[in-house]
Amino acid sequence: MITVYGYSVSGNCHKLRLLLEQLGHEYRWVEIDSSQGATRTPEYLAKNANGKVPMLELEDGRILVESNAILCYLAEGSRYLPADAWLRAQALSWMFFEQYSHEPYIAVARFICGWTPLDSPRRADLPRLRERGNQALAVMETHLQSAEWFTGADYGIADIALFAYTDVAHHGGFDLAPFPALRNWLARVRNQSGFVAMPEPPAENAALLAHID
Amino acid sequence: MITVYGYSVSGNCHKLRLLLEQLGHEYRWVEIDSSQGATRTPEYLAKNANGKVPMLELEDGRILVESNAILCYLAEGSRYLPADAWLRAQALSWMFFEQYSHEPYIAVARFICGWTPLDSPRRADLPRLRERGNQALAVMETHLQSAEWFTGADYGIADIALFAYTDVAHHGGFDLAPFPALRNWLARVRNQSGFVAMPEPPAENAALLAHID
Repeated sequence: MITVYGYSVSGNCHKLRLLLEQLGHEYRWVEIDSSQGATRTPEYLAKNANGKVPMLELEDGRILVESNAILCYLAEGSRYLPADAWLRAQALSWMFFEQYSHEPYIAVARFICGWTPLDSPRRADLPRLRERGNQALAVMETHLQSAEWFTGADYGIADIALFAYTDVAHHGGFDLAPFPALRNWLARVRNQSGFVAMPEPPAENAALLAHID
Repeated sequence: MITVYGYSVSGNCHKLRLLLEQLGHEYRWVEIDSSQGATRTPEYLAKNANGKVPMLELEDGRILVESNAILCYLAEGSRYLPADAWLRAQALSWMFFEQYSHEPYIAVARFICGWTPLDSPRRADLPRLRERGNQALAVMETHLQSAEWFTGADYGIADIALFAYTDVAHHGGFDLAPFPALRNWLARVRNQSGFVAMPEPPAENAALLAHID
């Protein structure tokens, strides 16, 4: 059986849980609290020198890292990743957009709000992160004004990749009211067969998230 | 014929030129100086709402963005992207690493050093960018201590993606002396058939790069 090493309240990790549940794929989940240094132990770094979650381990011990690369690997041959070369390229394009232009602002703002102390100097970054994150949301809104999904006619792994942190963007102080097409898309994702929501953050983090800067 | 819209001294854009030359693929190159706002015109944004280079346009007008997604699309079926599912996943993994853990530090440090004024407040970011960039170089060094390339036994698009900014890391003030395996890998890439180097930056940028902070 495959093993996922992940932190359940991380969007990057939740992407894998969501796809695996929708595929009906058996897996073992090993909880790794990356917020407490669990990806920086010598044992973990020996498997992933970049010290991040999620990480996929095959039954024979082979390792794959990077959430969106794992999505591609697991979705191969399924309805969640088309065989058509152009559609696959579009899916990849949106997944690279997610990791470069979306996650570094929307996920990082959430992390700062919920996983750093109220007096953290990192909170000074929030206005810039929100400005850049809103630009990413606007790019998604433009696309969704004329398309139902991020890859062709069907829901797939590009939607999963973009959904993960967009659905909890409010944790980082983002307001989705100006993005109606995006809000409708979030609702369509939640209605997909086999959908599972990301768990609520632990109490300590939820308390910090209640104090949005 | 396909058209690449790119800024020749951008590593993300040079990735495409290097692959296309190695493939012997005909293409038209339209120079877009992203450092002077050429990706923010209404005409450009109509094709790419995210306002970045490179961008690929097919003969029928279809658009593909994100450098590494374009590499995957163009390399399909060639020696530069294996057919094996596990090797493809590893190639993608390194390409996501490049965009998330490498480019935002190594390319951004280079941009700040060569494309912003000597009194730019952004120069205060350089120590942090260099610390994080060196972490990425160390991850590459660890891999290259036991592997010749980033995907299995052969040179391919993961090498192209990682080469682009690593080869000009010195522009951002990075010292590759502590990374001997990485320096040997750079030399192996330069020796590949069809290799083309990125052009030198324009004089104005070269002058700024001569004043490393």
